[in-house]
Amino acid sequence: MWRVYCFPLCPFSRKIRLLMSEKGIGYEIWRTDPWDAGEEFWDMNPAGRTPVVRDAVKDITLADSRAIAEYFEETVDKAPMINGTAKNRAEIRRLVALFDENFYHDVTMPLLHERMKKRLILRQPPDSRMLRDAMKMAHGHLDYIDYLVDTRPWLGGPQMSLADLAAAAQISVADYLGGIDWRDHAEAHSWYTTVKSRPSFGPLLSERMEVIQPPRHYALLDE
Amino acid sequence: MWRVYCFPLCPFSRKIRLLMSEKGIGYEIWRTDPWDAGEEFWDMNPAGRTPVVRDAVKDITLADSRAIAEYFEETVDKAPMINGTAKNRAEIRRLVALFDENFYHDVTMPLLHERMKKRLILRQPPDSRMLRDAMKMAHGHLDYIDYLVDTRPWLGGPQMSLADLAAAAQISVADYLGGIDWRDHAEAHSWYTTVKSRPSFGPLLSERMEVIQPPRHYALLDE
Repeated sequence: MWRVYCFPLCPFSRKIRLLMSEKGIGYEIWRTDPWDAGEEFWDMNPAGRTPVVRDAVKDITLADSRAIAEYFEETVDKAPMINGTAKNRAEIRRLVALFDENFYHDVTMPLLHERMKKRLILRQPPDSRMLRDAMKMAHGHLDYIDYLVDTRPWLGGPQMSLADLAAAAQISVADYLGGIDWRDHAEAHSWYTTVKSRPSFGPLLSERMEVIQPPRHYALLDE
Repeated sequence: MWRVYCFPLCPFSRKIRLLMSEKGIGYEIWRTDPWDAGEEFWDMNPAGRTPVVRDAVKDITLADSRAIAEYFEETVDKAPMINGTAKNRAEIRRLVALFDENFYHDVTMPLLHERMKKRLILRQPPDSRMLRDAMKMAHGHLDYIDYLVDTRPWLGGPQMSLADLAAAAQISVADYLGGIDWRDHAEAHSWYTTVKSRPSFGPLLSERMEVIQPPRHYALLDE
């Protein structure tokens, strides 16, 4: 049984948990806050980031969410998520990077800082200008998702792929933190509702980060 | 013929150029400064980052340096750089991410900001405290390279891999900008000298970014 070291609002861990569920790979959660993690965690991942996944029986420890995703893609045939020709696969990986890096940097990271870290660690009120900026950036990213789903069935091409999981993972954390406004994004919203309705998404939507409550619509499958 | 859109001190483009040279893939350079790029570049890569590679004859455009690396790995058999068992491959990818993200964030990015952007774009003097901090962080990363090459022939395992190219690409840019001090890092230095001496490295070492000059030892193969 794999153990996933993560905290409820880590978007990269959500991506990996979605991937594992889609592929039918069992796992247990091992709650790990990177800002408060001990030596054991840093030994497993000198980058200091979640998720780390470990199979103690096979003595395999993996770090970096993209490396983990490629590992499961290479070792588990079920539900291929980096699929198609080399060109298609490059497009899926480009989009994963876009959401892992740009969406995270522009939207998820500032929201996590203002609404989670300031509340739980720094004991400061959020900066409303930073929140507004993050929500504005979110609109730009949702515009791009509107454009993608207007031209393809799924973000990365004809099939659901790691690109959808990466995007939905980031959006779900931003949505939990009140940073997503779906107005004027009907295409993106319709795509997200489809992904959110998958059984793999259920466990994420029912989890709560202590003290911080999501908006009412967060876990509803028809909103 | 592939065209690589990049600027001389882009560490991610250096990683891809090293990979292409090792694999014997011909390319031409198309100078692109992301901070001053036009619509054509942003259309090719909405993430706004170099490198982008394009083969006009095949009409293939690829963006994101890790997606590009995986593409060439999948399509060109020569000189495999993400090699071995799934576990080995995960370790190579973990290290690539460590250098692409942590080393870049801690060392290369602040050096590029202080020594290149402030000089060429912002017309400001560098902040000496930021430079000191970046060099201090570089020591931590070189310590980790010392540890790796103490336990393995190459950073990612028994063979040269994308991990070596990713690390050397970041270090070469940091070195160009005067941010690398090899004292107390004999193992890392010996590894870097080996990588730097490869024919694939030659073109990078002879390039110059306008106005900014590297230290004397930068392009010397025995230092």
